[in-house]
Formats: sequence, C-alpha cells, structure tokens
Amino acid sequence: MSNQTKIPHRLYLSEDEIPTQWYNLRADMKEQPDAMLNPGTGQPITEPELYPVFCEKLAHQELDSETRFVDIPEDVLELYKIYRPSPLCRAYNLEKQLGTPAKIYYKFEGNNTSGSHKLNSAIAQAYYAKDQGLKGMTTETGAGQWGTALAEAASYFGLDLVVYMVKVSYQQKPFRKAIMETFDAKVIASPSDTTNVGRAILEEDPDNSGSLGTAISEAVEVAVTSEGYKYVLGSVLNQVLLHQSIIGLETEIALNKLGEYPDIVIGCAGGGSNLGGLIAPFMRDKIKGDRNPRIVAVEPASCPSLTRGKYAYDFCDTGKTTPLAKMYTLGAGFKPSANHAGGLRYHGMSPILSKLYHDGYMEAVSVEQTAVFEAAKLFAKYETILPAPESSHAIRAAIDEALKCKETGEEKTILFGLTGTGYFDMVAYEQFNNGTMTDHIPSDADLEKSFATLPDIG
Amino acid sequence: MSNQTKIPHRLYLSEDEIPTQWYNLRADMKEQPDAMLNPGTGQPITEPELYPVFCEKLAHQELDSETRFVDIPEDVLELYKIYRPSPLCRAYNLEKQLGTPAKIYYKFEGNNTSGSHKLNSAIAQAYYAKDQGLKGMTTETGAGQWGTALAEAASYFGLDLVVYMVKVSYQQKPFRKAIMETFDAKVIASPSDTTNVGRAILEEDPDNSGSLGTAISEAVEVAVTSEGYKYVLGSVLNQVLLHQSIIGLETEIALNKLGEYPDIVIGCAGGGSNLGGLIAPFMRDKIKGDRNPRIVAVEPASCPSLTRGKYAYDFCDTGKTTPLAKMYTLGAGFKPSANHAGGLRYHGMSPILSKLYHDGYMEAVSVEQTAVFEAAKLFAKYETILPAPESSHAIRAAIDEALKCKETGEEKTILFGLTGTGYFDMVAYEQFNNGTMTDHIPSDADLEKSFATLPDIG
Repeated sequence: MSNQTKIPHRLYLSEDEIPTQWYNLRADMKEQPDAMLNPGTGQPITEPELYPVFCEKLAHQELDSETRFVDIPEDVLELYKIYRPSPLCRAYNLEKQLGTPAKIYYKFEGNNTSGSHKLNSAIAQAYYAKDQGLKGMTTETGAGQWGTALAEAASYFGLDLVVYMVKVSYQQKPFRKAIMETFDAKVIASPSDTTNVGRAILEEDPDNSGSLGTAISEAVEVAVTSEGYKYVLGSVLNQVLLHQSIIGLETEIALNKLGEYPDIVIGCAGGGSNLGGLIAPFMRDKIKGDRNPRIVAVEPASCPSLTRGKYAYDFCDTGKTTPLAKMYTLGAGFKPSANHAGGLRYHGMSPILSKLYHDGYMEAVSVEQTAVFEAAKLFAKYETILPAPESSHAIRAAIDEALKCKETGEEKTILFGLTGTGYFDMVAYEQFNNGTMTDHIPSDADLEKSFATLPDIG
Repeated sequence: MSNQTKIPHRLYLSEDEIPTQWYNLRADMKEQPDAMLNPGTGQPITEPELYPVFCEKLAHQELDSETRFVDIPEDVLELYKIYRPSPLCRAYNLEKQLGTPAKIYYKFEGNNTSGSHKLNSAIAQAYYAKDQGLKGMTTETGAGQWGTALAEAASYFGLDLVVYMVKVSYQQKPFRKAIMETFDAKVIASPSDTTNVGRAILEEDPDNSGSLGTAISEAVEVAVTSEGYKYVLGSVLNQVLLHQSIIGLETEIALNKLGEYPDIVIGCAGGGSNLGGLIAPFMRDKIKGDRNPRIVAVEPASCPSLTRGKYAYDFCDTGKTTPLAKMYTLGAGFKPSANHAGGLRYHGMSPILSKLYHDGYMEAVSVEQTAVFEAAKLFAKYETILPAPESSHAIRAAIDEALKCKETGEEKTILFGLTGTGYFDMVAYEQFNNGTMTDHIPSDADLEKSFATLPDIG
C-alpha cells in the first residue's frame, strides 16, 4: 500500500500507457455463456448468419470466446487518444463528507462530447464498418448517450448514421437530437412509420411512446433491408463488452501504480456495457482465485432484470427479430416506467454478466431513483462532476458501502464506474430539486405479464 | 524543440505541478491601468471604500499592482485539485483536416461541472468570503457559466448564494437555473422586483429582457444592503484576472515540457477573465522583450468593445452604481443583440487588457456568430469536445490563422484557450444546424447612441 497522501485526486495515465489490446473475459471464464440461438432453427448461430446484421469482424468478435487479447486497430487507438486515458479519481471530498474510513475511487468516463463511456465501443464499431467499406449504420438510442457517441464516431469516419430514438426521450430531450444532428446524424422518433415493425406498433397503439426494444427492431429492419448498411448496438453484446474492457484495463494499471486493489467493484447495469468493461480484469482475478473482490451490479428498482428477472432465452428486441440470448430478462414485452435513467431501461442483460451472476461471481442490488438523485446531488456538490442518472446508481451503492464502513470502521477500498455526465438530464434534476420525483416499482403481477412474453425455448 | 511525434494529444500535468501562486501581471506592466475611481468624488478609490462591496482580501487584490506572486490558499488548492491541472491539448485531428502546417494547441478548461474556466475564480472568491466569516454572496450571470461555477463553490464552502440571471437567459436556458439550484443557489430573473434598480427599470419598461449590466446593479444593491453578504463578479476585475492566471501558468509549464512556445496566443474576450488568465505569462515575456508572441483577443461582431469601443472611464453596470473603470467600452447603456455567446455580451472590457491593447501589446478581431458556429461544429467533429459559443470565437480565429499558415507554408505554433463546453447552448446549435442563425452587427448610429451614455469623466 502506497503512502495515502501521495495518491492524487485525479490520476491520468500517460498516452503511451493506453492499452493497445482489448481483453476478452470469456477466454478466462470457467463456463461459457449459453450460445446465442438462431430463432428460426433454434440452433447456435454462426458467424455468417450474423453478417446480414453485423460487420464481419464484429460478428467474429461476438462469437469468439477464445482469443484472450484482441489488438485495438491503429485508427481506433488514434481516436481513443483524444479523450483517453480517462482519469481514475480518488473521492477525498466525498469521503470526508461521509466521514467514512473507506477509500472511494471512481473511473470517470464522461470527459468527451458524448458525455459517457459509450464512445469506447462506438469508435470501434464505426471503424469496422468503415473498414468493411460500408456506407452507413443504423442504431437505436434511449437516453441518447449511445446515439451521441455513435454520431461522433460516424461523423469522424465519414459514415451515414440513422438513429431510432425512443419517442419519449425524443420528445423530452430535444437537445440530444440537436447534438446528434450537429454530428450530421439522422434522428427518427421510434416507433416510426419508416419501418414495418414501427407501422405495426403504431397501428395497434398510435400513442405508443416507444422502448429500446422497439427502437432496436426498427434499426435492425432498416439495416438488413438497406444496401451498404449494418446495425450496431451500444450494449448487451459480447463485442461491446470486449471494447469496453479498456475501462477496466486502464483502471487496473492506475490502481497498480497506487499499490491499490479494490475490495468492492461497483457499476450501474442496464445492458451491461459499462459494468462488463470495468470489472473485466477484476473478475478475471476472481475467477482465477487470485483475488476475491466483491463485484456489485446496481440496477433501477423500476427495471430489475438481475434482481427480479428470469435467466432464460429471450429476444433482444420487442419486435422479436433478433437472435435469442440466454440472459436475465424481464421479458421483451416488459414496459419500463418513466424512470429518468433511460440508459438502464432495458428488459435484458449482457449474456456474459448474466452467466457470471448466475454462477455466483457477482452480486446485484436495485435502488430507487429518489435515493439515486440524493446521492447524485451530494456527489456533484463535493466532487464537482454532475453525474448522469445512470451513473448515479453506482454512486448510491458506493455511498451505501462507504456508510457501512463508517459503522464497522473497516477501511475498505471501493471502486465504482462513473459512466457519464448529466447535462442532458436537467429535467430529472429539476424534478428532484422541487420534490416532484417519484419512484416506480413494477408489481409481481406486472412481471408475470411480461414473463409471459418469453419465447418457449431453452 | 522536442520530437513532434512524442507530443501527446492531451498533456496532463501531475497534481503536484499545479502552481501554488497566482501571477499578478500588473507587477510587470511598464505602465499601470488608470486607477478605478470613486464615482462620488472622482478620486482613485481606496481599499476601505471597496469593503461595502467586496471582501477585504479581494479588495486588496483588486488594488494591489505590486505583489508579483500571490499564494493560493491551501483550501483553494485542495479544490483546484478536483479538476486541475486542466489538459493542454494538441489538435492533431483538426490540423489534419485543415491541412495546415501550423501546430494548434488549446488549453481546455471545461472539465468540471460548471463547464468552464469560471470555477478558477469562483472557488477563490467563495473561499475569501468564507474566510471573512460571511453568510453569503450575490452575483449576476449571463450565459450561466459564472453562476454555475459560483453555485458549486458556494455550496462547497457552505455559503448562501443569490444569482441575478439576465432574464432572456433565464427564460431560454431553464436548465442553467436547474443546475444552479442543484447546488442550492437562489436564482432570480433580472430585472426583478427585488431591488430598487430592478423596480425602476421594470416601471419604465415592463418587458425589459435584462442585461449583464442590469444584473450587476441588482446584485450589488442586495450585497450592500444585506448583513453578511458581499458581491462577487466573474470577469472584468483585476482580482479575477489574478485568479485566472492559473490557466496561463499551467500552460506555460506544459509547453516548456514540450519544448514549445506559441507564436500566436488567442482567446475569446467578453470581460476578459479567460483571456487575461491565459496570456499572463506570455504577455510578461512580451513586455520584458524576452519573446514576441502575437496576442489576439476575439470578440463577437455584435458586441465589439475593443474593435469599435472607446477607451474611456465608464461604469461597470447599467444602473451606474459601481466604481468607474478606464476601459474599452461601448457605453454602459449599450444593448447587445441576442447573440448566443451570452458570456461575451458585455459593454466593457478588463481595465488591464484595455490598457495592454491601448499600448499596442495586443491585437483584437471581431467575428460573426455563423462563422463561429461553423468553426465550433468542425472542432466538435474532430476534437470530440462540444465547445461553448464563447470559446468558439477563439476556435474561429485559431482556424483562420492556421489556414493562413496553409497558404504561406509557415509552421507557426498557435495556442488558444478553450474556455468551456456547450451542453447548455443546444438551442444555438439547433439554429445553426437548421440554418436559421443570423448575424447582428450594431450600426454606427447604435454605437453613437450608447457612447452618449458614457459619464463625463477622465
């Protein structure tokens, strides 16, 4: 353990310390996640079967569970250098306010225009699309972080981009649309009349306010029916967790420099992109038995896929057009309430994380949004970063663990992922400030109804 | 000159390289700016005469032109460490896109919740208020960056804060209000019925949409009539330029490490807080004759105090309640058009910068906002930072200089200040994206009218 007074508030690695390879956690898992299935045949899907949807190299990454380290392409590294390495921060001020003996670290991924960690995979996916000679990409976005990140990356590589944005977000966050348009992306409110899936939904329910699942269905439909376009997704997929491993790898290098190792690693979990990336090297140590950190996923009580979902095969989208993934899910028909953490409003969870949770390597907690914003406000006040609602789920859990240490006197080392900033979430902060924010927890009956939408497979 | 390939995209100094003293450029100026005058007596104002408005230590800093280096208080340094050192960035991607042989550097001050350099002085001013045992502070804000920064600092030190926000900004930027309220500040649209000045203005013109000058008048009135409150200002003042010298000092250290020295230093200029801070060490070299960098202030064509104003004594506020400063001014009665760079919409200019400009040490250019946003968009696309409209004035000028180098083949080193981010300026970006943004240049007749509001002094 190094001298505590020598640990800086913000530790930036130098540019030549950015890892040049991503880490594929699957290569070290004792048991692999169950295979993705072709919904037509019920058989494990093959790389070529993924080509209509994904770029070839990304299809390969999706199914490759053996290659431990994957070289990061030079052009991707070059763009990473504009905003990476991201800082590893020691929350001295927050610790002092809480009066905790715990040491709190956070890896801050919000220092780029997209305001979140999403850029790490957006750049990679746009690069591979360009590399394959494509004309453009389609995608969905909920809170808008992924759409913004991909718009940036697409603009840089000179690719067209069509973003299906969940209608309720489209209406509530006009500025998210504006920033994507600043990067020349085309933004369409979903459900829309531009796809068969969208038209079918609107015919049945003209006021449908959309969901991530529906937006995915529309984006996939356009990709597979348009020449020179592929679909890209910002979370859930194995390839995304691979790209996001850069977060964990940098964190590991920085902690090594400080002579630190986390007792607890905490991340918010929607589809799992940030959590899977942050924990990768620590989970490896745990699987190998070298270390035994607690690893904690934090999800909204309003969309509790890990804590109340089923471990089952399910579609990744509402329109039931994607391959089937074995994951913790609330059912593709689950309609999440209007929680402000739009990035966590997804019915499923990364198959890799689902498997690790199922096998007991990971814990999960759910938190209510008023408690989350209370933590967010405290954090903003003492750490001078306005956190995104999604990220603030991890802050809530980190504060709770630090307060437990205050009771027990334990000097635990807590690490959490601060995925992004909340500049586009001020409506939520306003509601919290003026006391009109409420919590939403699905009833057991609600869940039974959405579980009934699970396919009869596996 | 170091090997160019070794220069990183982002250079972060380590925490222990943060300067521990501010630099007072006045100590090295060959001629001092003309003294601030007491409007009642027409005589140079004394420190005690400033005490009703400013904290004692800040009043001292305001008038002290001799102390070359001022120790940064320990508590201020501690807070600086949460977001400083800020990175010195090399715009490799932008250079490549422009095809320029010039090297473009920028010092990025937007990596904190306030999203701008304003926090550097906000923390200092809040600290001195706390140190003097005050209960709270009053201030004004236009674009909202200063108000946000001060709200953060006040919240940290446990001080009350009342912010008079220019009404047009208050209405157009509800989220700025929300973020200040997240830090527990009280935000009032100005002109308001809470002050004599405000009531008088509203009586004459109930639809008055406010100005920085009016908001200052209201904030000063409340400070001098409320027990335990002082007024603080985010620009123009000598004390602010002193605190902001941290920007230039860090830049100097970083450039030294790289073996670089700027041929041109560029900053946007409203009241001069960022420009005065950034240029401090380079202007010192120039005054001493050690080096001869070009130093360029960039202002909006809609509010051209340096390029079209008069060098004269004027009030710092519309209500004509403040001391008189000798500065380049359009007249305290100048009504700026609705340019989106709210932080540059001020009738006057820092007396220090005005004197340096008057004595030929500095150049000034004015640019129109559509050209500014064109530069902003290009910058966002290739440097992955969404710049504030204010900051984008400097980007415009830097790009123009880089394009001149492309023509001449000169490999100049260009440095500019990137003061902050544009997350709260999406309405402006929307206007630019959809082609509805227009330019506003005051006519000579407009200026003659506002020059008529200058006091008959000096």
